[in-house]
Amino acid sequence: MRASQFYISTLKEAPSDAEIVSHKLMMRAGFIKKLSAGIYNYMPMGLRVIRKIENIIREEMNRAGSVELSMPIVQPAELWQETGRFEKMGDELLRFKDRHQRDFVMQPTSEEVITDIVRQDVRSYRQLPKSLYQIQTKFRDERRPRFGIMRGREFTMKDAYSFHASFEDLKREYQNMFSAYSRIFERLGLEFRAVSADTGAIGGTGSHEFHVIAETGEDAIAYCPDSDFAANVELAEALPPALSRPAPTEALTRIATPGVKTIAQLAEFLKIAETRTVKAIVVEGDDGAPVLLLVRGDHELNEIKAAKLEGVFSPLRFASPASIRAAFGAEPGSLGPVGFNGRIYMDRSVAVMADFVIGANETDQHFTGANIGRDFPEPLVADIRNAVAGDPSPDGKGLLAICRGIEVGHIFQLRTRYSEAMGCKFIGEDGKEQIMEMGCYGVGVTRIMGAAIEQNFDDKGIIWPTAIAPFQLVICPMGWSRSEVVRDSATRLYEELVQAGFDVILDDRDERPGVMFADWELIGVPHRVVIGDRGLKEGMIEYQGRRDPEATKVSTADALDFVRTRILG
Amino acid sequence: MRASQFYISTLKEAPSDAEIVSHKLMMRAGFIKKLSAGIYNYMPMGLRVIRKIENIIREEMNRAGSVELSMPIVQPAELWQETGRFEKMGDELLRFKDRHQRDFVMQPTSEEVITDIVRQDVRSYRQLPKSLYQIQTKFRDERRPRFGIMRGREFTMKDAYSFHASFEDLKREYQNMFSAYSRIFERLGLEFRAVSADTGAIGGTGSHEFHVIAETGEDAIAYCPDSDFAANVELAEALPPALSRPAPTEALTRIATPGVKTIAQLAEFLKIAETRTVKAIVVEGDDGAPVLLLVRGDHELNEIKAAKLEGVFSPLRFASPASIRAAFGAEPGSLGPVGFNGRIYMDRSVAVMADFVIGANETDQHFTGANIGRDFPEPLVADIRNAVAGDPSPDGKGLLAICRGIEVGHIFQLRTRYSEAMGCKFIGEDGKEQIMEMGCYGVGVTRIMGAAIEQNFDDKGIIWPTAIAPFQLVICPMGWSRSEVVRDSATRLYEELVQAGFDVILDDRDERPGVMFADWELIGVPHRVVIGDRGLKEGMIEYQGRRDPEATKVSTADALDFVRTRILG
Repeated sequence: MRASQFYISTLKEAPSDAEIVSHKLMMRAGFIKKLSAGIYNYMPMGLRVIRKIENIIREEMNRAGSVELSMPIVQPAELWQETGRFEKMGDELLRFKDRHQRDFVMQPTSEEVITDIVRQDVRSYRQLPKSLYQIQTKFRDERRPRFGIMRGREFTMKDAYSFHASFEDLKREYQNMFSAYSRIFERLGLEFRAVSADTGAIGGTGSHEFHVIAETGEDAIAYCPDSDFAANVELAEALPPALSRPAPTEALTRIATPGVKTIAQLAEFLKIAETRTVKAIVVEGDDGAPVLLLVRGDHELNEIKAAKLEGVFSPLRFASPASIRAAFGAEPGSLGPVGFNGRIYMDRSVAVMADFVIGANETDQHFTGANIGRDFPEPLVADIRNAVAGDPSPDGKGLLAICRGIEVGHIFQLRTRYSEAMGCKFIGEDGKEQIMEMGCYGVGVTRIMGAAIEQNFDDKGIIWPTAIAPFQLVICPMGWSRSEVVRDSATRLYEELVQAGFDVILDDRDERPGVMFADWELIGVPHRVVIGDRGLKEGMIEYQGRRDPEATKVSTADALDFVRTRILG
Repeated sequence: MRASQFYISTLKEAPSDAEIVSHKLMMRAGFIKKLSAGIYNYMPMGLRVIRKIENIIREEMNRAGSVELSMPIVQPAELWQETGRFEKMGDELLRFKDRHQRDFVMQPTSEEVITDIVRQDVRSYRQLPKSLYQIQTKFRDERRPRFGIMRGREFTMKDAYSFHASFEDLKREYQNMFSAYSRIFERLGLEFRAVSADTGAIGGTGSHEFHVIAETGEDAIAYCPDSDFAANVELAEALPPALSRPAPTEALTRIATPGVKTIAQLAEFLKIAETRTVKAIVVEGDDGAPVLLLVRGDHELNEIKAAKLEGVFSPLRFASPASIRAAFGAEPGSLGPVGFNGRIYMDRSVAVMADFVIGANETDQHFTGANIGRDFPEPLVADIRNAVAGDPSPDGKGLLAICRGIEVGHIFQLRTRYSEAMGCKFIGEDGKEQIMEMGCYGVGVTRIMGAAIEQNFDDKGIIWPTAIAPFQLVICPMGWSRSEVVRDSATRLYEELVQAGFDVILDDRDERPGVMFADWELIGVPHRVVIGDRGLKEGMIEYQGRRDPEATKVSTADALDFVRTRILG
């Protein structure tokens, strides 16, 4: 491609509504252009990245034996009513009427339609399994679209669905998809992690998220650097400490802690570590009575785990200030187990503590030297906190570390949730009718573009992995209109590289070097060759990788081989 | 691809709502599956065809210097209000509200959005011209969707838009796109014709339609087999006959024609050719008074041409029976010019007639021996009929023929219709602000699939052009599970062909030969190889092209070369 024949439109400043790095850089580099809230034009530069991502996904899905089809964006409400999602889903599901006042939705996913297809076409176990996918536009009417294409309304997803005669076969395909997803993210050139996940709203059991690792990621992931273990922090088990509880050495002592409302303030006030304090949190029980939860001062309550405790209302509801005052006689900030005669749970880490500090159930009063069993009855013990760095890995293979990630893929064992509701059945080998087992497997195509940038940028702009860069290499001739020898040399190298199958852009716009370099660094093309009169006189051109601190001089004779080697990495 | 790993679903019978051949065959062959009226799933077999069509279009658009981008399906009403289309377009434009009650449309085309993009990015004549295209899902809420994907609601279109500093440059790009479209349809392997077209509802001046020729086409096209001339029959000029009017030889004679209402009945009643009769049609004039139009009995009035006549109301309105009775004193079926003293136009073909038959302005009465000038004053002469086969070609290069076509592409010179309404301006070389000239260029991607079938089928099924066949070749092994030698031989040829870059399907489903052949003939794979024990014993396999009356025996040693030659054509 010659730059003069392409559509390049870079901006000095990102628009003010761009909050995160990837959004800002994509706007500035001309990859996307906003049309409406959460709705973006994919400009030529951005579309090249999307097509490359799509192709890698397509190749690996095909390799994994999945077959591509395409389901309509506009889908009739009837199918969505069969599964109840037409009524149950929130306003994210865009519903509208056609000219004949019939109800339709714009697909956010396509479980209903694919299940309708398979229930029409498949009758016998001999036709199973089936694995089908599409790469298609989706629409989710987010209440507050933000972060550019990371949480947009119209976006592209690869969604795959599999149908099986048995749970065992579903599990086999789930593994197959797990491997395919790993290959996809490897080929995309992204650092990623497969993470055990809650199943979320889509339903079913057994699920992994695939995260692109980035400091700016919205999800915290607990992983073990020494093993494959990785889980959303909210789902990672915090194992019981290997210690046992020391014997008490201090007496229970009431102290005044005026104005102390938080653990940080308490530790600061007492000049002790937060690890010596215990946090008391009051939630609603099944019967409406308050339930007291105790976690170590430096830990965070895990609401998902807590909601699963016996006697605790699910989803978790924090007790109202009024009910707290009624049950404890004190304000939040000074609560504790001493004298409370309701149900109490303590985290495993609290269970091995002695001589700790805790609220005294009187506003602005705490106890020091508190001890379990002695000062209040032994509470029930449970894992109710978020895992933290340094915790033992639940797989017993080392210590946990925490990183942040951006969810770009998700695989589910749906089991029979949709197939049962929609009567997607087959005749088994035994001649009896059975419900099909289903899996579903999604990848956010346009989201990957954002996540890749969050993982790969510097103060100059984007740094694309070569596999999904809009162009693999840019040739920057110095003085395009002025120097025939530069023009000839640049054109020759360009043609040789194109001939060799590389995706190269020749910047023939005749811009000043500063403008040219700034553009291509912002756009993030990973390899650059600069060709100028001075270098050519010595028979040299300059190569610089986007992450290289300096350019490398290469003789014109070696240029093709050198560049080829660098691109193929 | 191995058939066992693909998704094949053929039907014995087409569903009863399938009206036309392509719809029936696509449903039966498992290319599409209906989801709702005018909304179809593209099944794996159909999607392969669509992707091949898309790729040919993409390659030729890129070659022509157009740059791909992608504009959202969901577009905000504001832009559509700027051009007035939000209000003016009928119910085909699907309008809906998002969760915040803001108005949106689903794009049927994207003139507004592309103009919005270009007016943001382009400031100077130096940045012009721009040519951009997308291959994207469109939605038109047809009142009565029919003919499968030929007139569906959700469909795929390639829409391109170009922006220019001058009308001259727009005309240059229009020619460039004309050539690109010709290359596209040539590469698709379809018989097509570029046809001068009315500009239709989209507006602007200068336009060509690209039609795939098929007997079942909805449009009649007048073309000259000896030249490039082709026009929609409604737009082709009917030249004046080369003859001059003969002198009258008969007297004007009133005859009774009881019950005769049509030209066919009149000719039958009088035992004369329809060419000896003249049809009288009454339309409304600008002033509401009736205007009489005369065309030869065997010709058809062309309403577009007639509406352009001076004094005739546009769009054409036929006079009411009441106003006809008031002006002529007779019922339609017996009308004529004799005694009528309003405005009269006659077609050029009527102007050279003598001694003809025409209505006598008395119900069930006609005149024979009618003559212009003698029996009624010379009417105004104009071209007001449809061209017919045998007419001289307007380009003077031969005689016209008529064929039927399916419109699959359309190119327009939009000029400034959208750019003016939306303020899409640039600073010209003279420093003054100017409105951009625009062109737009559409191809119906999914419609091409239907049109290709309408052009290429027989009683067994579809006959795909190799370029867009779902597979180029199918290998049918006889007794897949039974014969190891067949399996080995089929697999070897399959692997060699795949290695050589061909798109081959190996039918390893172990079906009976009859089922296998019927499936692949229905699906329309253009090349077939049959491998069986008996042939292999003689060292032979059988090749048959989808249009070949018989199979050809080919030695196994020559098989690869033979097949390669046939596929490459």
